[in-house]
Amino acid sequence: MINAPKPSGSIPDRSIYERRESVVRSYARAMPRQFGKAEGVWMHDDQGGRYLDFLSGCSTLNYGHNHPILKQALLDYIAADGIAHGLDLHTDAKAAFLDTFEDVILKPRALDYRVMFTGPTGTNAVEAAIKLARKVTGRELVIAFTNGFHGMTLGALACTGNAAKRGGAGVPLAHVAHEPYDGYFGPEVDTAELLDQRLADPSSGLDAPAAILVETVQGEGGLNAASPEWLRKIADIAKRHGALLIVDDIQAGCGRTGSFFSFEEMGFTPDIVTLAKSLSGMGLPFALTLFRPELDQWSPGEHNGTFRGNNHAFVTATAALGHFWSSDAFADDVRRRGALLEERLARIAAEHGFETRGRGMMRGINVGSGERAGAITAACFDAGLIIETSGAHDEIVKVLAPLVIDDALLSAGLDILETKIRDAMADDYAVAAE
Amino acid sequence: MINAPKPSGSIPDRSIYERRESVVRSYARAMPRQFGKAEGVWMHDDQGGRYLDFLSGCSTLNYGHNHPILKQALLDYIAADGIAHGLDLHTDAKAAFLDTFEDVILKPRALDYRVMFTGPTGTNAVEAAIKLARKVTGRELVIAFTNGFHGMTLGALACTGNAAKRGGAGVPLAHVAHEPYDGYFGPEVDTAELLDQRLADPSSGLDAPAAILVETVQGEGGLNAASPEWLRKIADIAKRHGALLIVDDIQAGCGRTGSFFSFEEMGFTPDIVTLAKSLSGMGLPFALTLFRPELDQWSPGEHNGTFRGNNHAFVTATAALGHFWSSDAFADDVRRRGALLEERLARIAAEHGFETRGRGMMRGINVGSGERAGAITAACFDAGLIIETSGAHDEIVKVLAPLVIDDALLSAGLDILETKIRDAMADDYAVAAE
Amino acid sequence: MINAPKPSGSIPDRSIYERRESVVRSYARAMPRQFGKAEGVWMHDDQGGRYLDFLSGCSTLNYGHNHPILKQALLDYIAADGIAHGLDLHTDAKAAFLDTFEDVILKPRALDYRVMFTGPTGTNAVEAAIKLARKVTGRELVIAFTNGFHGMTLGALACTGNAAKRGGAGVPLAHVAHEPYDGYFGPEVDTAELLDQRLADPSSGLDAPAAILVETVQGEGGLNAASPEWLRKIADIAKRHGALLIVDDIQAGCGRTGSFFSFEEMGFTPDIVTLAKSLSGMGLPFALTLFRPELDQWSPGEHNGTFRGNNHAFVTATAALGHFWSSDAFADDVRRRGALLEERLARIAAEHGFETRGRGMMRGINVGSGERAGAITAACFDAGLIIETSGAHDEIVKVLAPLVIDDALLSAGLDILETKIRDAMADDYAVAAE
Amino acid sequence: MINAPKPSGSIPDRSIYERRESVVRSYARAMPRQFGKAEGVWMHDDQGGRYLDFLSGCSTLNYGHNHPILKQALLDYIAADGIAHGLDLHTDAKAAFLDTFEDVILKPRALDYRVMFTGPTGTNAVEAAIKLARKVTGRELVIAFTNGFHGMTLGALACTGNAAKRGGAGVPLAHVAHEPYDGYFGPEVDTAELLDQRLADPSSGLDAPAAILVETVQGEGGLNAASPEWLRKIADIAKRHGALLIVDDIQAGCGRTGSFFSFEEMGFTPDIVTLAKSLSGMGLPFALTLFRPELDQWSPGEHNGTFRGNNHAFVTATAALGHFWSSDAFADDVRRRGALLEERLARIAAEHGFETRGRGMMRGINVGSGERAGAITAACFDAGLIIETSGAHDEIVKVLAPLVIDDALLSAGLDILETKIRDAMADDYAVAAE
Repeated sequence: MINAPKPSGSIPDRSIYERRESVVRSYARAMPRQFGKAEGVWMHDDQGGRYLDFLSGCSTLNYGHNHPILKQALLDYIAADGIAHGLDLHTDAKAAFLDTFEDVILKPRALDYRVMFTGPTGTNAVEAAIKLARKVTGRELVIAFTNGFHGMTLGALACTGNAAKRGGAGVPLAHVAHEPYDGYFGPEVDTAELLDQRLADPSSGLDAPAAILVETVQGEGGLNAASPEWLRKIADIAKRHGALLIVDDIQAGCGRTGSFFSFEEMGFTPDIVTLAKSLSGMGLPFALTLFRPELDQWSPGEHNGTFRGNNHAFVTATAALGHFWSSDAFADDVRRRGALLEERLARIAAEHGFETRGRGMMRGINVGSGERAGAITAACFDAGLIIETSGAHDEIVKVLAPLVIDDALLSAGLDILETKIRDAMADDYAVAAE
Repeated sequence: MINAPKPSGSIPDRSIYERRESVVRSYARAMPRQFGKAEGVWMHDDQGGRYLDFLSGCSTLNYGHNHPILKQALLDYIAADGIAHGLDLHTDAKAAFLDTFEDVILKPRALDYRVMFTGPTGTNAVEAAIKLARKVTGRELVIAFTNGFHGMTLGALACTGNAAKRGGAGVPLAHVAHEPYDGYFGPEVDTAELLDQRLADPSSGLDAPAAILVETVQGEGGLNAASPEWLRKIADIAKRHGALLIVDDIQAGCGRTGSFFSFEEMGFTPDIVTLAKSLSGMGLPFALTLFRPELDQWSPGEHNGTFRGNNHAFVTATAALGHFWSSDAFADDVRRRGALLEERLARIAAEHGFETRGRGMMRGINVGSGERAGAITAACFDAGLIIETSGAHDEIVKVLAPLVIDDALLSAGLDILETKIRDAMADDYAVAAE
Repeated sequence: MINAPKPSGSIPDRSIYERRESVVRSYARAMPRQFGKAEGVWMHDDQGGRYLDFLSGCSTLNYGHNHPILKQALLDYIAADGIAHGLDLHTDAKAAFLDTFEDVILKPRALDYRVMFTGPTGTNAVEAAIKLARKVTGRELVIAFTNGFHGMTLGALACTGNAAKRGGAGVPLAHVAHEPYDGYFGPEVDTAELLDQRLADPSSGLDAPAAILVETVQGEGGLNAASPEWLRKIADIAKRHGALLIVDDIQAGCGRTGSFFSFEEMGFTPDIVTLAKSLSGMGLPFALTLFRPELDQWSPGEHNGTFRGNNHAFVTATAALGHFWSSDAFADDVRRRGALLEERLARIAAEHGFETRGRGMMRGINVGSGERAGAITAACFDAGLIIETSGAHDEIVKVLAPLVIDDALLSAGLDILETKIRDAMADDYAVAAE
Repeated sequence: MINAPKPSGSIPDRSIYERRESVVRSYARAMPRQFGKAEGVWMHDDQGGRYLDFLSGCSTLNYGHNHPILKQALLDYIAADGIAHGLDLHTDAKAAFLDTFEDVILKPRALDYRVMFTGPTGTNAVEAAIKLARKVTGRELVIAFTNGFHGMTLGALACTGNAAKRGGAGVPLAHVAHEPYDGYFGPEVDTAELLDQRLADPSSGLDAPAAILVETVQGEGGLNAASPEWLRKIADIAKRHGALLIVDDIQAGCGRTGSFFSFEEMGFTPDIVTLAKSLSGMGLPFALTLFRPELDQWSPGEHNGTFRGNNHAFVTATAALGHFWSSDAFADDVRRRGALLEERLARIAAEHGFETRGRGMMRGINVGSGERAGAITAACFDAGLIIETSGAHDEIVKVLAPLVIDDALLSAGLDILETKIRDAMADDYAVAAE
């Protein structure tokens, strides 16, 4: 079924990358093939190889590659000379998106958010969110969390925990405190209480925050899933201390956890939410910052950006919302499939004494070291499965399959993963036995 | 020929914007129509109105809307299930883009740059550029210029001069000094020399800079065009003081000034160049940071972003480079048309004692006040001409027509502008005479 | 014995303070008398009032006021036209100080420190310490602790926990993280381990620190005394993570805890130590930064200050070191008296269910609220006892008697305190009973 | 008359400095003697050498060393057990100082300032000044000037221009812009106008400032004296742009320029003034921040410091104010002597084509290079004259003789300087002729 590349085949010249592309590239190193087409759960390389995609563009392709309904909507729009680039002008495509977002997403969830079209990348949405929080509260400090990942531009990077990414800034990253995430000090320590104590103490040195910025599941940080109890406490802490609660739902949102927003039915409502990645549904750049209407205190153009009117993305996003979110069927199916994934990963992990992580269709196994995780994902790739690692030490093998994957293919991919983990452990035992 | 909207027509409900879109929107305020289709130099609203576009998405649509060659290339690519979103994986579309960029742009200009695919917005490219400069030099200060505009994320915003934008940050914008641009203190004062003196003085308080970040023409800052002499001096100053020269060519690049890069044939080569806006050719989000190979000192993934592999944009960019830049014909035509524009604007300006600004097809008239400029552009819009203002006080009416516009339409648009300026001045005289 | 001011006496005109002194004054508010002379443990006001001093200039007068030996040394020096102000020139007084400091303090303790004469205030010494740590390590972050107090200039203020003091900065206080001090989260949580975990985690968002800055007893922060075990762990953490350990011994040093340095015999040696307050012995401005010789990487004059050669202070400091520290007798006596104090405070506290805090002759009682503490110290003042509060909420009544106080006077002062606490509690019961 | 040290004499052991004093020491390098006593204009080393002091502790000893009236006042005070250290309590010595400062300084000049007793070093006074300006205006940026020197703690250091000092910070120095001082770009360029233009331009990137911080004569920066016209413009610019004008009068104040404040009779009144150095009159640490009563918006204790009540300094300051400033005689004499100095330096300078700098008794000669200036001052020192350099390249030989010097001794010192400059130039000619 899966058809990995033939290494013996004639490999075309790739020297253009060596010659011209910055060495900053990363995924291309672990997956040294050239890809051309993709549909649904499959990616194809230029050597006839076919790969099952358990990475999904880091959760940007929740509905798979080139979903036919989204694709057709975009083809029709382009063919009819629909506006591609509209700055922040009113356009038919934007109106349709807003209408659909209101009807399909906001109203059924009783959420009253204003929608801000930021520059179409997640980091732009995060920058807009923290700017707004600082503007509205008149405070400067943002509280982010250990292992959090929020983007690479200077404001968002300051909120990101990863030292290697932070080191790239070249200037100190200020105005952010990184507090321990749920479970960071083990199950015995309630890190929300630690935070509350420091914020309540006028001599703790922790300044009054403009915002608390949190992911409900830390995608890049190791698939750590916060409990609803902890998140409710954080929401309450934000409120009591005059800070805004920002949920960065860029990776966990758009259905990945089994509901459109990752925080649904948890008993709190964020003041601000960021969305990007799977928002357009087809992988096109699109990002939003949502906030309570009372917070909409921007001056016109105070935060802008050339590509904030990416109408192609509005078109596919509208189609995706309409197709997948008009009823509960899709979300129900994702939750059901998430349970399958949980059960299967738990079994694989138990065999080796590993732990699982995550929530919904956003799960992984801590295989103990980044070296081992890298060996496993490399072996999977050779077997035709695209899968990546995550976590502070890249020690988590993460499964981010398209949400639309059918059960048989999910199972087939997990079979490969199971085998490659087993092989890696056998190798380890063999080495240890020598 | 031009067919402005019929205000008497039935106007559809726009309450969705009031209800759901953040008040941060700006262009939609001065152009309160809903647009649907667009082709070439024309935009169409949903009331049957047709507008000549002298804004071009702030220079993002240099080849006009939905150029047929670009459009067809994209339709074909999508129809064939070409990969839309590829993180930073090697893809056919990326290889084709790099090959074409090397052949058509770099080689003929004897430029040896590495290409970094940043998040697909201009501000992301600027953030990557200043990060790299800080990393490579081990210094923190970036020197930017008065009236410079470089983006809205925290690192780029610190480089931006506009106080209203800066005020949105909510935190102090540090590690950047804003020095006077060419001509800032009038023609008598050589601001490059002022800068040189302070950098050479160990007691000036101006720290040793990592980079000097400059636009050759300040698009948002009022169409101020630096002279080649001044730019060469700045390049020399950067070199002598151990700083990298970054040319932000996001608005002035991609042909707007009459050559692909705005700094061609000026006698210096920037260390780093940022590109975005018209790079994809069709208005799709795409941005690049270019730099000398010796500066390519990134660690893998040290600066990343979800949408850095926007393959749709690679496809249209490749088509645009091939179509417009394989020979000199297009650039020659832009230069010729730029001269027409210059001559015509000079005549309009002279009639009222105004000054013109700019270079190539990036020009404007300083009409003396933002209020007057706003009245003129509003009157133009009512007459079917989309045109905007620029400058510290929005006092410059700027002409950013598509580069592909034919001479007759350029002339027709300028006729409207001429009339509306004349009307505005007549009104002023009338008011003054009362 | 104690002779508080007669409120009925004719009070001289104090309007000069209202008219000319900034409202920033603080102690004068709670002790609204004008003082003239002072000797030993006594202060005298201009109305004939005599006060027992349990504040000792916040531990600046460990040897009491105008100690006769110090006073005579200074009188002799001045009378002989000894140099008062010597920039950083070599002077007889400086040489004598350095010789004595080496012989009496460093050698017996096997400490090999270089001595830096900073500007003569504690905050200057702290600024020098953190500058040096940043310079030597090439890192920017300083780790300080909750409730820490290190000074009011911008670098030291960033290390200070108190929100009211921090708010005075008017700019964000950056490059410092405030971590929980020993016992901050109760006896069950080892805050050193929490810190270690975050520093060891490359994704925690806590940057690699230049220094860990700690007080062994937090004088202003509430007389919290860290355990030797915790301090050893902190020293070890600093070493393992490449940070320098700075002990701010400004308030706890110079004998206050029963040894010259507060960290003696704890099993670790700080990389850098700051001293001030009681260093001159007579209350004259004097501060030092001490560090391991390998860290002495300053360029000449890289950190300077007009008053770094306050030779009067050198003279009295030399006299104080010679008189009090040439043998163990003084320290032994302070330790013995500290035990008396501990025992007595414990008894007072137990009567009301209060807790005691501190170490050596630096102790206090947590009376539960700042309001009550203020009422108690005010009543003490009316009874002729100068005593102040401390802590995040000013809820600690602190005893900082001169170290030279005789046991009878210490007891007499504590009698007043005991009575006033009892009165305050009786008032509370009365109020509660109403 | 002058009696330089006998180099052949037996030199005592100075190894204590090598062994124990930080290498940060600087003056001791160029003047490698050990000093013991000093009176009036004379300093004595421990080898019988006698030196005429043209440095005056960098203007800290305007009334000479150990002035008999000040000395006696201090001896009497100490002998009578006057309080040495008083935190910020009311004391007899403080009341006397405030009364005298009001009567002798403020009232005759019609200045209505509140007096803030900061920590007793200049840098503490500057920190308090900029904190207050930021607090009162709610703005963060301070505008300082090229070659300005304001102190070494982090807030004041950010306002200092010297790169070597700045480099010691180890963190970026933010929230300050360094603008060109009067004459910085030559006599043709009015730097006040350049500043005004940028502050008036909403797109210049120069944020609205909290304060403009200026020295009327830059002591460390090269004895640059601003013209009254320029200072009035700066005062006007501050007012028009909502910033507070802070005059840092730490070096130029206390009579150095011929009046108590250096800005007297210039036609403007600063909002805030800092004083230190010669304030105590005898070289004891003392610093003040003065401000208009409306600006006295501190909370009690919001800015504090252990040694803000250095009563010894209050005593000598009161004596100095009474003795030197109760009539105009002293100031008249300083002005007269300043004119002598000016005339004499001009003559010396003219002989070699050099330029003079400065104002009042704060003057120097630019001898063209730091190397030459160092050779000259070294030769002077060998001849018994203590004199130092200043300026960005240490190229200014500066004369900071005590203000009380008699004309004959001033002349004798200048004779040495004249000779040594002539010698140095002769050496240069000889070298050039070889």
